[in-house]
Amino acid sequence: MQVKKIEHIGIAVRSIEKALEFYEGVLGLKCYNIEEVADQKVKTAFLKVGEVKLELLESTAADGPVAKFIEKRGEGIHHLAFEVEDIDSELRRLSGLGYQLIHQTPKDGADNKRIAFLHPKSTNGVLIELCQEKS
Amino acid sequence: MQVKKIEHIGIAVRSIEKALEFYEGVLGLKCYNIEEVADQKVKTAFLKVGEVKLELLESTAADGPVAKFIEKRGEGIHHLAFEVEDIDSELRRLSGLGYQLIHQTPKDGADNKRIAFLHPKSTNGVLIELCQEKS
Repeated sequence: MQVKKIEHIGIAVRSIEKALEFYEGVLGLKCYNIEEVADQKVKTAFLKVGEVKLELLESTAADGPVAKFIEKRGEGIHHLAFEVEDIDSELRRLSGLGYQLIHQTPKDGADNKRIAFLHPKSTNGVLIELCQEKS
Repeated sequence: MQVKKIEHIGIAVRSIEKALEFYEGVLGLKCYNIEEVADQKVKTAFLKVGEVKLELLESTAADGPVAKFIEKRGEGIHHLAFEVEDIDSELRRLSGLGYQLIHQTPKDGADNKRIAFLHPKSTNGVLIELCQEKS
C-alpha cells in the first residue's frame, strides 16, 4: 500500500470545548477548524501537530457512533487515519485480501477528504481510516 | 508547552509478529527496531510513517501494564506520545497545574528516549506520554 503519512488521530471526547482546554491551553496546539459531519453524527475540531492532525470528535446524537464508543469505552483515542494515494484501489485490494471494511466505497469526511474505515476485527483492535484529499 | 510533534502512537497487541503481517505486509511500513523495555514489561516494535512512529507493544509478563490493558479493553491504541523540548520542566509545570502524573520524573523508555506518562483521568481518557530524545 502507498501510505503517505498518518493524516490524523481521532479522539472521542464528551465536549470539544472542554478538551480544547487541555490541547490548546496546556499543550499549546491551535484549533484551526471546527465542522459538523452530519453523516457521522459528529462535530469535529482539528489541531495541527507537526505534519499530523488531531481530530477531536464530539457526538451530535445519542445514537451516533462516537456516542456509542464513549458509552462503551469512555473518552479516548478512537481511530487512526492513514493518507493514501488512491483510496478506491486500496479498498478493492483490502477487500480482495479478506479484510473486513466498514465502508466498501469512500464517503465524504471532514477536512475535505474522501474516507473509509476498516473494521477493527481485521486490524488487531485498531479502528483504521483510509483517507485521500478531494481533488 | 513546546510540543515539537507526535513522536509515536503506542498500539497494544497480543503478538508483534502477527500485527506486523498487517502493518508491514498490508500497509507496507517497515519495522526498523524491536527491543524489550524490562521496566515496562513489554517488547516494542517500531515502524516509521512519515515523521511519526508506530510503537507496537507486546507484554512480556501477565501482570504488565500492556497485558492488563488488553485484558480490560482488548487490543488497540494504547497511548499517544508527544515530543517535547524539556521534559523535566514540562512535568513540573503540569504538576503545578494540577495534572495527575503517572511518573513524577522521567524514566528510560525505548528508542533512546526519556519518557513520562500523564494519567488519562486528567486528559479526557487519553494516555499521554511526553518524551525527549536522550542527549
